[in-house]
Order: sequence, then C-alpha cells, then structure tokens
Amino acid sequence: MYQERIQRILAYLQKQGIDAALITLPKHVYYLTGFLTEPHERFMGLVIPAAGEPSLIVPALDREAAAEASGIKQILTHTDTDNPYEVLKQALPSGLNKLGLEKSHMTLDRFETMSALVSAGSYVDIEEPLREMRLIKTADEVARIKHAVKLVEDALDETVKKVKPGVTETELVAELEYQMKRLGAEGPSFASMVLAGEKSALPHGNPGDRDVREGELLLFDIGVSADGYVSDITRTFAVGDISDQLRDIYATVLAANEAAIAEVRPGVTFAHLDQTARGVIEAKGYGEYFMHRLGHGLGMDVHEYPSVHGQNQEELRPGMVFTIEPGVYVPGVGGVRIEDDVLVTEDGCEVLTRYPKELTVIGKG
Amino acid sequence: MYQERIQRILAYLQKQGIDAALITLPKHVYYLTGFLTEPHERFMGLVIPAAGEPSLIVPALDREAAAEASGIKQILTHTDTDNPYEVLKQALPSGLNKLGLEKSHMTLDRFETMSALVSAGSYVDIEEPLREMRLIKTADEVARIKHAVKLVEDALDETVKKVKPGVTETELVAELEYQMKRLGAEGPSFASMVLAGEKSALPHGNPGDRDVREGELLLFDIGVSADGYVSDITRTFAVGDISDQLRDIYATVLAANEAAIAEVRPGVTFAHLDQTARGVIEAKGYGEYFMHRLGHGLGMDVHEYPSVHGQNQEELRPGMVFTIEPGVYVPGVGGVRIEDDVLVTEDGCEVLTRYPKELTVIGKG
Repeated sequence: MYQERIQRILAYLQKQGIDAALITLPKHVYYLTGFLTEPHERFMGLVIPAAGEPSLIVPALDREAAAEASGIKQILTHTDTDNPYEVLKQALPSGLNKLGLEKSHMTLDRFETMSALVSAGSYVDIEEPLREMRLIKTADEVARIKHAVKLVEDALDETVKKVKPGVTETELVAELEYQMKRLGAEGPSFASMVLAGEKSALPHGNPGDRDVREGELLLFDIGVSADGYVSDITRTFAVGDISDQLRDIYATVLAANEAAIAEVRPGVTFAHLDQTARGVIEAKGYGEYFMHRLGHGLGMDVHEYPSVHGQNQEELRPGMVFTIEPGVYVPGVGGVRIEDDVLVTEDGCEVLTRYPKELTVIGKG
Repeated sequence: MYQERIQRILAYLQKQGIDAALITLPKHVYYLTGFLTEPHERFMGLVIPAAGEPSLIVPALDREAAAEASGIKQILTHTDTDNPYEVLKQALPSGLNKLGLEKSHMTLDRFETMSALVSAGSYVDIEEPLREMRLIKTADEVARIKHAVKLVEDALDETVKKVKPGVTETELVAELEYQMKRLGAEGPSFASMVLAGEKSALPHGNPGDRDVREGELLLFDIGVSADGYVSDITRTFAVGDISDQLRDIYATVLAANEAAIAEVRPGVTFAHLDQTARGVIEAKGYGEYFMHRLGHGLGMDVHEYPSVHGQNQEELRPGMVFTIEPGVYVPGVGGVRIEDDVLVTEDGCEVLTRYPKELTVIGKG
C-alpha cells in the first residue's frame, strides 16, 4: 500500500520534471510510510528522489520506531546537536534543479535554514498528488474511518444517558470526551459542540453554562481521532416534548439529509447534492436558514477535499468520503443539523454513520 | 497593557529600520490586542506600521468580537470571496522597504500569495521582541498561569481519589481530562501522561492499558490551557507500600527539586539551577538516570523560552516563569519526576504549583 503511494509520487515527479520531493507534514509521512509521529520542533522528512531509493530522516530517538513502522529501508537520523539539513543534503540528489515541497506546511524560517544548505534551482509545490490520492480512500482507510465513527457513536450513546434538564452544555462536553478517551479514541477530532435551546441555532456556537431544558432541542456535533483518521457526526435531539415548529424543522432537515444521500453515486456532481438538500429545505420555506455548504471531505483531516457546495461541479468518484450535513437555524428558536459521513461506492453510497436519525426524545424529567 | 506591548514592537521597528510588522500567529495577536481566536484557514493579521495606527484584519464574521475584545480602533474585514491580501495591501504603508513577519509561523504558500500582491524590498523576522516580551510575565499573565495551575491541581485531586489497583493508565487519563473540562479548563495543554510501574521510567511514555498495581509508582505529568495560558505539573505517587529503593529514588528527586528551587533568584544562571539539581542526584549515585534538562519556560506555550539546561548561562530575571522538573528513571524499576512551575520575584521565587510533594501513598487496596 505504502509502496504504491510512493510510486504515485514518483510518477508525478517524473511527469513534472521534479528531481525530488521532501515530505515534512507528519500525516503525509504517515500516509506514505506508515510511520505516525509528531516530532514537534525537531526535523522529520521523507525524501523521494525521482531516481533512487527514498529515505526517511527522523530524530535519533525515533529510529527504532520508524524502522519498525515504516517500509522505508533507508532511515537517517540526527541528534539534537546535529544540523538536520546536513543530513537532508546527503539524502537529496546533487545538482538539484526542482525540489518539491509542501508549501502549505513549510514555514519561512525552515525554508530559509534549509535553502541556505540545500539549494535548488526552484521550489515547487508537491501537494497536488497527495491531495488527489487522499481524495480516494482505500479499504484500509475506510476501515479506520469506520472505527472512528464507531467510537464517537458509542461515546454519544453513553452521554445521551446522562442528559436531563439542568445539566449544562460543558458538563456534557466533559462526559463526551471522557467517554471518547475511555473507549480508546486519541481524543476529539475538533472542539466538541453541544448546544442547547436557542444556542442550537448557532452553526459555530461554543458550549457554555447554558443548561438543558425540557421542550428544547439539544445538538451534538462531535468526532474523534483514532489511528490517524477522524469521524464527524451531528445529531439533534428533543429534550422532552417539543413544539410543532421544532418538529417541522426536524422533519425538514431529515428529509434534506435523506434526499441528498439518495443521490450519492459516481458521476453525480457535488453541486447536485447541495442543491438537492437545499431544494427540500427551500420548498418548506426554510431556505434562508440554511446558510452553509452541505458538507466537506473527511479522512486524516476533519476538513479536507472535496468541498460539498453548490458551485462544485466536480463529479463523485468511488472511494470518496465526505459529510452530508444540512441544517436549519431559526434565530431565537432553535436549530437542527443532521450530519452523516458517507462513502461513494461503485454503484451508490455506503453511509458510515449508523446512529439513528428519527427524532428521539431524551432526558424527559 | 496591550498599548504598551504594541509600543515595544514600534520601538523595535524604529530601531531596526523596519517599515511595518505583520503579526499572524493567533496567540501573538491575542498577546498584542486581547483578541483570542483561531481563524483556521482564514486570514487574520495585525498590521503595525512604524508610523501610523495599527489595524487588525479579521474574517468578516469576527468583526464584532474583534472590535469588542481588542483595543485596536481600525478593524478591517474580508469575506470568503475577498482576497484578504488586497485588504492587507491597503493596511500597509506604500513603498515598503522592510516588512517584519513571524517567519516560524508564515508558510511558504501564504508568503508567495502575499508577496505577489504586497511586495517589500526584504522580509525580516519580527519574533525577537515578542520572545523577549513574553519572557517577562506581567501580573496579569502570572494570574492566568496561577488559574491554570489551580485547575490542573483540582483535577489531579479528584482523579487521585479514583486510583486503585486494577484501574488503567488510559482510564485515569480519561478521568483527568473529564475533571479538567468540568472545572472549566479549555482542555489539557499537552497529551496527559499517566504512567504506572516500570512505565514511569519512560520520560516520554504513552499511557496505555497498563494497570495500576500495589507496590509500584504512578506518575502524572499534566497541564491545562485556560484563557490562553497553560500549566504543567508532575507528581509521582506510591500505590500502597513501595520498596526502599523506590523510596530512595523519590527522596533523591525531591531533594533535587527543592535544592534547585532554593537557588531561584535574579542573577543566578539557568545552568546553575540545572547543575544544582543534577549535583544532588549525582551525589546519590543516580546521575546517569537523569537524562533530560531541568526545565523549560511556560506561559502561552507549554514549552517556551527560557530553556533551563546546564549550558544556558543566561541570568534569571524577575517575571520569568519556568518549570523545575528533575527526574530519576531506572529502567525496568520505575521513575520519579517532581515538577513545579516557578516565578522569579524581585528577591527570590514564588512556587506557583501548590500540590504537596512529600511521598504520598494512594490507592491502597
């Protein structure tokens, strides 16, 4: 698997006439080698020359772990008193014309320190083939995402049992994140969002001291990281009996979610998915209250390619994983969002999130 | 306070002949304006011209929050369809000779996009005056660090009650982080470390399924973030009765910790502190088992200047805050580390961490 990914980088280097790639983003090193670490201020880099063997440069204390986890034969190390760019210089082909870098990760100071020692004719961005590969998930990646989904759904299940009038949003966040860790997740994949009552109408609200009350909505937008992959799910619950207006909003969002999912298959455009969900919401008169895109790609990052919005004419391809998360947010009243993670299959769609979506009443006093 | 900090930057610009500074690191924007946010992929920048008024460029949705939290009069905004560098260009003086940037934060792709629109004769690093200012904490900053210390100590107090033989390291991490959130911390300031038995001898160990057992050590190295500042504390406990060897290691590390703290006062060097602690440990024959520096600066980051190591001949100054964390790690047997956060005062030292340090037996079955 890793060998094949490195081959894809090699093909790109050859096609573009790039002499070598230097990969420094830890998740890209993980993606291409299987070695996952966070070297913090220490230098780590995977060198892929267009001709020759790749080598992995790691801090000396990571040598064994890197040799064990990665398929890279040549592991080069540096200690805290070495200049890691001297090691890099040796790993790169001499007389570099074009060097490929991840320009959205390389900082100016690192670039200046590096280019003082390792000079190339020009520096080009190498992220395109990585973005393209990451767009299509392998079976192994889908399995990891499913695992992250199961962890967050189990954490939600446990937390929902603790919901009762009077408990605050932050108490529920604490419980959720306790359960995530207890179940074996590395932690939340983004700041867990638990919003009660009128706060559920804030698409980017922050959990606080607001307490849960009967007759209101309670929204959870949560995810976990595990084994380098993430999940992201939103469910909105009724706390006790809720008004007909809130029930109507819920039914509308659920219909939009299901209508969009029903359209997921290869060849359809992302714009079509967004328009399908938006059309359902507009038909019910809530169009002005759905003011964000339908969804986003998901994998090693909680927001990655593709972007599921109304202007994206790109077509769905098998192996893509993204969220479908329509919402209706009526200021002062409440908001509903229902978010699933979906995988495009050869002939349709697999919904990776399994948590029930019918309106569920919890915490009845 | 913020005004004074911006004045310091201005003085640096004038002294160095820099036309303007562009500050983009969110915690530096917070430090200089009081506005704390994480704009993710959106552009945020504080522009400080050597002559003229500073301006703060934020995403449109942050306008109100920025205007409320910051003392900056001129707030400029951009929407998702604007080019934020056009806004930046207008905020910068024309005919730029030298532009100051945070080179350890600015990525190559942002730099290329920016410099295509906003070109200066040269780009220089602007982090030195920020590093220098951050080194000396104000009373307000000390109060925030103390608050973060109190939160982590209260979380530890609650968690220690749950320690009993059979509980695992990861269960204790989950409990700790639950308590941190419940008490009002934003979250842990680094990956919480709970290590039992022989794993306590790993200075960079990862909590796992290892369970707590009687007759062993249990090490907690933990901290929280709150209001933009962090804490960092290590305490090592005895689970039930422990061997004389482990008691001797504990007593040695405690003596080293106290000896170093007793030397904290203005004018002493960091090297002297490290050597003081190391001398105590070497005299007891454990020198080879203390293989890391004595400590590190603490403030908005969990590792910042100064570095408390044996070669640092820099002198302590009032207002510096750093950790003192000697340790002895005997492979296969166990390790003890005792870490305090200290503030250098006019005539000595204030220990910010209050958690008791005498050997404490917990979880007796």
